[in-house]
Amino acid sequence: MPVLYDRVALIGLGLIAGSMAHAMRRGNLAGEIVGTARSAETRAIAQEIGLCDRVVDTAAEAVEGADLVVLAVPVGAMGAVAREIAPHLKPGATVTDVGSVKRAVISAVDPHIPEGVHFIPGHPLAGTEHSGPRSGYAELFDNRWCLLVPSGNADVGAIDRLRALWEGMGAHVDLMDADHHDLVLAVTSHAPHLIAYTMVGVADDLRRVTDSEVIKYSAAGFRDFTRIAASDPTMWRDVFLTNKDATLEILGRFTEELFALQRAIRSGDGELLFDYFTRTRAIRRGIIEAGQDTDAPDFGRAKAR
Amino acid sequence: MPVLYDRVALIGLGLIAGSMAHAMRRGNLAGEIVGTARSAETRAIAQEIGLCDRVVDTAAEAVEGADLVVLAVPVGAMGAVAREIAPHLKPGATVTDVGSVKRAVISAVDPHIPEGVHFIPGHPLAGTEHSGPRSGYAELFDNRWCLLVPSGNADVGAIDRLRALWEGMGAHVDLMDADHHDLVLAVTSHAPHLIAYTMVGVADDLRRVTDSEVIKYSAAGFRDFTRIAASDPTMWRDVFLTNKDATLEILGRFTEELFALQRAIRSGDGELLFDYFTRTRAIRRGIIEAGQDTDAPDFGRAKAR
Repeated sequence: MPVLYDRVALIGLGLIAGSMAHAMRRGNLAGEIVGTARSAETRAIAQEIGLCDRVVDTAAEAVEGADLVVLAVPVGAMGAVAREIAPHLKPGATVTDVGSVKRAVISAVDPHIPEGVHFIPGHPLAGTEHSGPRSGYAELFDNRWCLLVPSGNADVGAIDRLRALWEGMGAHVDLMDADHHDLVLAVTSHAPHLIAYTMVGVADDLRRVTDSEVIKYSAAGFRDFTRIAASDPTMWRDVFLTNKDATLEILGRFTEELFALQRAIRSGDGELLFDYFTRTRAIRRGIIEAGQDTDAPDFGRAKAR
Repeated sequence: MPVLYDRVALIGLGLIAGSMAHAMRRGNLAGEIVGTARSAETRAIAQEIGLCDRVVDTAAEAVEGADLVVLAVPVGAMGAVAREIAPHLKPGATVTDVGSVKRAVISAVDPHIPEGVHFIPGHPLAGTEHSGPRSGYAELFDNRWCLLVPSGNADVGAIDRLRALWEGMGAHVDLMDADHHDLVLAVTSHAPHLIAYTMVGVADDLRRVTDSEVIKYSAAGFRDFTRIAASDPTMWRDVFLTNKDATLEILGRFTEELFALQRAIRSGDGELLFDYFTRTRAIRRGIIEAGQDTDAPDFGRAKAR
């Protein structure tokens, strides 16, 4: 089978781009993989571990002759990168991104895309708490969803080819409207991350419970929050600043519900608590049935590397 | 090496008691393990899978001649069980419990303990989202902490023997004051659980995002919340009702912090967000260094069964 793209340029070499490099090689999906990163240290590591076929110093250089350009930088940096690469894009090329927010990325990137280049924003729903060029692995996208949010007049052939790439890397693909994407992700990802960061910050801040107690006794539930709250700070700062409205809306709903449950605790309303906790168990069952988690103690993550 | 207790009575046969049965057998720590549960179905399953040496119908019967009695029922049921077993306890026996709250259990149980019986409340910091007699496994307590909260005049020999039992089941043991225990657990377990239940409830309740979208796209962070929010509803109702003050105090702190972060999002204060998220990463490193989690994608949980 011929490769899907003769040359792929990865701009930014963190967890997602690194995993794409591994997954494209596993599936023999790209002819040549060219990578670049702003930091010289990242580029040196990528070179050392052979993450790409070629590592170059600038984004402008990386996109020369590329059939697919993947913007894999924090959401807040997408616009500047798009401006830099625009004059160097190959006619007919596809530009995509992997940002966790879509409306803001479209606003920042779309104005720079030249006539004859296809811009198809994307977002793979996969990740770990690790970051950097050494953190990627080929199986990251296996059985995960990748959402593509093309505009109404996007080229169907270009969409189909990008979909085939993600499917080749192990993912399922759905098309979605950008605003709906941002609301769905506010619920499934952005609000949960802010909540986890907040809870870990509270624990760190208490005078009467020491950090060493928090750390020793974390297995009782807190541990999973710390994993979420260990994700890349730059990436998450940008997510919250660029998906502000949807995140604040969901956090508002969250606070309302939390107050209702706090009132039930204060007034001793065990029935309300029991019914609430029974209802949330059903959602968990749905996730396991949908194959997005397992009920094994290891979360099924052992297979991940 | 002789066994630590000639006869152990397990009252309640859920995840914790079941895991204790497996772990005591693994370490040859008990002569005979007698078990009982309120539900006839649970008792029948325990009998069928050979969870204990003997399954009996009542708690009163179970504790006859037992050298160690383990109360492994929801916190709200501890007092009634203590009243039922009190007249049947063997002189010199030790009674312990595994409840997630300690002050309320002590208030409910201690008045029923006869002269000459040692009551040493305990709490193993281990669990999964599963419950019932089939959910236990021998490795649940390996490398986890068990907190014992004996009163000031408790028998030192009885404490040492119970400590040896938990160590024999793979756990580390610390002694702690009951009120401090309840505050520490409010931070590391009770507040995180209520927050996870709340977030999952919010997701379930939204009109504009369907349950099937939440379920399909859960891998982006929400998934870990649903696992926590799938824990046993009766157990958790009782935890919140009996550790009310500490839980509400921590939730109050949490809400304050959440409001501060929401304001930073609304006002676009990226520096505050970045600094906050950088600080929470350090806590995670501490937990990994303390051996209470791994940074492998599988959480190190693959070893758990």
